[in-house]
Amino acid sequence: MYEILSRTRIFKGLEPEKIRSLLEGIHYQVRTYNKEDIIAFAGDEQNHLLIVLEGLVSGEIINFEGKSIIVSEIPAPNSFAEAYLFASKNKLKINVKAKVDSKVLSIQKDYLKRLMSNEPQLLENYLNIISNRFIIVSDKLNFMMIKTVKGRLAYYFLNKQEETGPGKPFPLERTHQELAVFLGITRPALTRNLLEMKDEGIILIEKKKVTILDNKKMVALIS
Amino acid sequence: MYEILSRTRIFKGLEPEKIRSLLEGIHYQVRTYNKEDIIAFAGDEQNHLLIVLEGLVSGEIINFEGKSIIVSEIPAPNSFAEAYLFASKNKLKINVKAKVDSKVLSIQKDYLKRLMSNEPQLLENYLNIISNRFIIVSDKLNFMMIKTVKGRLAYYFLNKQEETGPGKPFPLERTHQELAVFLGITRPALTRNLLEMKDEGIILIEKKKVTILDNKKMVALIS
Repeated sequence: MYEILSRTRIFKGLEPEKIRSLLEGIHYQVRTYNKEDIIAFAGDEQNHLLIVLEGLVSGEIINFEGKSIIVSEIPAPNSFAEAYLFASKNKLKINVKAKVDSKVLSIQKDYLKRLMSNEPQLLENYLNIISNRFIIVSDKLNFMMIKTVKGRLAYYFLNKQEETGPGKPFPLERTHQELAVFLGITRPALTRNLLEMKDEGIILIEKKKVTILDNKKMVALIS
Repeated sequence: MYEILSRTRIFKGLEPEKIRSLLEGIHYQVRTYNKEDIIAFAGDEQNHLLIVLEGLVSGEIINFEGKSIIVSEIPAPNSFAEAYLFASKNKLKINVKAKVDSKVLSIQKDYLKRLMSNEPQLLENYLNIISNRFIIVSDKLNFMMIKTVKGRLAYYFLNKQEETGPGKPFPLERTHQELAVFLGITRPALTRNLLEMKDEGIILIEKKKVTILDNKKMVALIS
């Protein structure tokens, strides 16, 4: 188990032996679940950190029509819902379900805090995880405030260019499918709009690298 | 200064004397800024927690057209950008500026981590602040995924009703202005759509309390 934990983001940088000694100082539970078992219910207060040790766990929303929709899948080894644990509104919004036979470690939040106080690396990891979650969602929200597909692409590309410098090509990094999901648009819409921006001479795409040719037109697309 | 700090969310629940003894164990800086001084620049790595002790500080974005837009105002006493400090991408996206003459305390992040390790209340407070930020932005993102004004209102009201129970009235809590900002819509659009939902017999609003009369129609508005 300690070797598995050393591969999670929470215990990143800690040796299995170190993790063993940390966990020996607290209480924790390891439970096994059969496929389709519910691990936690929407509406439950989230007072334990859950780490999937083996198997695959899904987060499912029951929408207002009563339909179950999978919103996330967490393969082992990984923790999840880290930000809910310490939020003022800590009720889960999703059902957590075993997609296959799974093994889950659960640590009560007061014990987790004690571990963080004792081990600076764990504190750093945990702060890093929830801070990154915040940044990702904030960035996504900024995109969603822009109404048009070309506007979102322009915003994304201009931000990328700020990292490399004006006029310089930068790598596309994501596949079309990944980029479409990230920008909250469909893949055909992405491809069509990229082609139009190329045809209009605003961007150049070569070998998965993008160059902004017309900065002014690009900026105009956002507003 | 310690009395001022005891009124911030970060030091919530700690007596001024306790805060004094915590801060005496580390290095920190207190700087004064004149009105319009820049406190931190967009693009800078955020390695210090900044706490406004006196005055008023603003976060300003320079948009791609070079125009400065105020995105947040932080009155004393308060900290800000807590989530950036421990994120992997920790470059500020905003200029931080003194709106009036201000005094700002700055604590380097390694010292802050040390304080959190030594004082469980501070750890709890900090985790709570960044977790809440995440939940607020996530909720907002969920609203933005819904395209229509009525859909956003329906989603908001159905969630509120889940807290009180089916058919029961729940308080509106926010003013129309606050609700409009929260839902990312204009105030006239909010008022018009609320009236339409009343006229269609979907909701009843009385004494700042809302009752959902037709759950099925409400649900249909979201999709």
